[in-house]
Amino acid sequence: MKQSLLFVPTMKEAPKDAEVKSHRLMSRAGLMKQTASGIYTYLPLGQKVMNHIESIIREEHDAIGASELLMPAMQPKDLWEESGRWYEYGPELVRFEDRKEREFCLGPTHEEVITAVVRDHIDSYKKLPLALYQIQTKFRDELRPRFGLMRGREFVMKDLYTFSESEEDLDYWYEVSKKTYRKIFNRIGLDTKIVASDTGQIGGKVAHEFMVMSEVGEDTTVFCDTCEYAANKEFAGLSSGDACPNCNEGTIQEAKGIEVGNIFKLGTKYSESMNAYFTDRDGLRKPLIMGCYGLGVSRTLMAAVEQHSDENSILWPESITPFHLHVLPLKMNDDVALQMANDIHDALLKTHSVLIDDRDERPGVKFKDADLIGIPYRVIVGKDAKDGKVEYINRYTGEKSVIDKDELIAKFSG
Amino acid sequence: MKQSLLFVPTMKEAPKDAEVKSHRLMSRAGLMKQTASGIYTYLPLGQKVMNHIESIIREEHDAIGASELLMPAMQPKDLWEESGRWYEYGPELVRFEDRKEREFCLGPTHEEVITAVVRDHIDSYKKLPLALYQIQTKFRDELRPRFGLMRGREFVMKDLYTFSESEEDLDYWYEVSKKTYRKIFNRIGLDTKIVASDTGQIGGKVAHEFMVMSEVGEDTTVFCDTCEYAANKEFAGLSSGDACPNCNEGTIQEAKGIEVGNIFKLGTKYSESMNAYFTDRDGLRKPLIMGCYGLGVSRTLMAAVEQHSDENSILWPESITPFHLHVLPLKMNDDVALQMANDIHDALLKTHSVLIDDRDERPGVKFKDADLIGIPYRVIVGKDAKDGKVEYINRYTGEKSVIDKDELIAKFSG
Repeated sequence: MKQSLLFVPTMKEAPKDAEVKSHRLMSRAGLMKQTASGIYTYLPLGQKVMNHIESIIREEHDAIGASELLMPAMQPKDLWEESGRWYEYGPELVRFEDRKEREFCLGPTHEEVITAVVRDHIDSYKKLPLALYQIQTKFRDELRPRFGLMRGREFVMKDLYTFSESEEDLDYWYEVSKKTYRKIFNRIGLDTKIVASDTGQIGGKVAHEFMVMSEVGEDTTVFCDTCEYAANKEFAGLSSGDACPNCNEGTIQEAKGIEVGNIFKLGTKYSESMNAYFTDRDGLRKPLIMGCYGLGVSRTLMAAVEQHSDENSILWPESITPFHLHVLPLKMNDDVALQMANDIHDALLKTHSVLIDDRDERPGVKFKDADLIGIPYRVIVGKDAKDGKVEYINRYTGEKSVIDKDELIAKFSG
Repeated sequence: MKQSLLFVPTMKEAPKDAEVKSHRLMSRAGLMKQTASGIYTYLPLGQKVMNHIESIIREEHDAIGASELLMPAMQPKDLWEESGRWYEYGPELVRFEDRKEREFCLGPTHEEVITAVVRDHIDSYKKLPLALYQIQTKFRDELRPRFGLMRGREFVMKDLYTFSESEEDLDYWYEVSKKTYRKIFNRIGLDTKIVASDTGQIGGKVAHEFMVMSEVGEDTTVFCDTCEYAANKEFAGLSSGDACPNCNEGTIQEAKGIEVGNIFKLGTKYSESMNAYFTDRDGLRKPLIMGCYGLGVSRTLMAAVEQHSDENSILWPESITPFHLHVLPLKMNDDVALQMANDIHDALLKTHSVLIDDRDERPGVKFKDADLIGIPYRVIVGKDAKDGKVEYINRYTGEKSVIDKDELIAKFSG
């Protein structure tokens, strides 16, 4: 892919309201652009990463037997009256009237819709369990949109809903979803902690959050440096430096947390209020037992930038990088170098995603932009091109070498 | 994949408001379900087809050098005031206020947003051309939602926008997009006609629609049975049976048309009003020359059902079928047959997508549902299983044969 066609508007300065590193970097690297307060356009480089994150989420959800569907953003008031949330939910719920003055909201979450979808068709335990998920755009009218994609008003989420005949089966899906989330975040290269949380506006009995430890974030989290223990500081009663309650070796540290996932044992809150009943193995009529499991796709993108960057450069994990290789011909009027850069691009395109910086810019600009946008393997085609050689940099290891063009191609084709 | 886990709620009866065949079939086959008037949930089988259609669209757009981005659904009033459309657009535009009483609309189209995204960064002809697309949920508050996904209020579209330095370059992209649309619809197995159209609420100078000829649809179209000629009847002045104006052999026929794509030469309507200027090769400041190209993803799904079905059964084109093979064990208490069905499922899963009907239902129900949901290759595992044999049906050709299990596996693994 030619960088000139991709539309990567890099910038020297971040927007003034960008308080956190990932927000600054995502703006400067041309990953996203603000369209209104808390509302962003994902530019091509950012969208490529989003697509990779979504593919990983789909693979891991399909692997546990969950099926993808797509529910609407426009949700009719009557469903939210059934659950009782139309009046409980605060001004974060975007409400409006259609042309016939019927009331709607823009879904921040889909418990009502999924319950309405399922209740007409699941009449017996024989049709259970059921696990349905979607990757979809959600809306929450935050009072103070902040931190870029972290507290936005329009965002992309994966939400999974499970329907069970028993508490034991709900427990099973809850544990499966925890494992699935760990797997997804591991694949994406995100280090997360699991924290017990309150159930808030979603409701239910038990809930956990997946948090990325960071210098920024909305909640202060205490966590153990050697085991899985982590908790919301407000509830934990522990201070940084304390010995840890559940493991012998670690000590407690403190950090802000970026919430990238939250899972809830809903129980029968929605099925009872919305009349979603089934006939159990003993012939008794019972409400469906539900779980819901959210994963912030756009937040995950931002958290990945926060964790894999310094102030002037991103380094994408291999699983979600927008391109594997970045080929930089340093002078666009050096025909030998340009030809070699194009040859490398074309040869490696069969097995890798390759970006070539074909812009007529000074080498310094190309290097700075390359650091900023974060592609892990870099090939610099400069004055050694006349001897058939390029400079190769593995940004993960810092390894640099001047090697033969053919050797480079063989290295990546092997 | 087990059919019991997939959530395919087939129905004997279609909803009463389903006036057209595809709407009836999509409801009965468990492809979609209405959530509110003109607002649908895509169920897992329908979503699988949508994902295939989207993959084909992405491949063909990436192939012409277009880059994917994602713009927001919530669009601020000020952008629509700049273009002048805030006051021009009718009540189909969903308008609402956020919690701070700022006005927004839900995008039915994204000319304003894309122009605002691009104008800050494209200052020179050196950065042109540019082709940016998204696959995104759109909103149009239809007065009378009708025909299922054909005239819905929330729908999925691909929209491409091009930015050129000259009329010639716009002409180039317009022709490229036409070719790309033909390729996409061919790959999906949709027979389309191209009809000149008016520019309506989008604006611009030249526009064409891609129409699927059908018994239903919103416009009456006249078309030639042997050449590419087609036109909106209102403007064509031709009647069914007429000789065709542009080719010698064909005769004019009449049909309704389902619009699945529309393309526009916008020119400078948005760039002039929204101040999106660049410096051309002569150093002059000029407005960007734009094109926009819409393709209805959910409409394409519906049109594919309309074209590839009869009243009680769908037959998916191979490129978008939700599964390739449908394995039907006829009796769930016949251990030999069930084991064989599972073996076939597992063996073919490596190279094909396979659905196994593991429901404890009568054979008649399984056959009816299998016809309805439309998977092209069917394997029936019944009483011949004890002799190692299954019945294989190729629904495209109608070919039926009783063959050895291993022969079947070899046939699909070859």
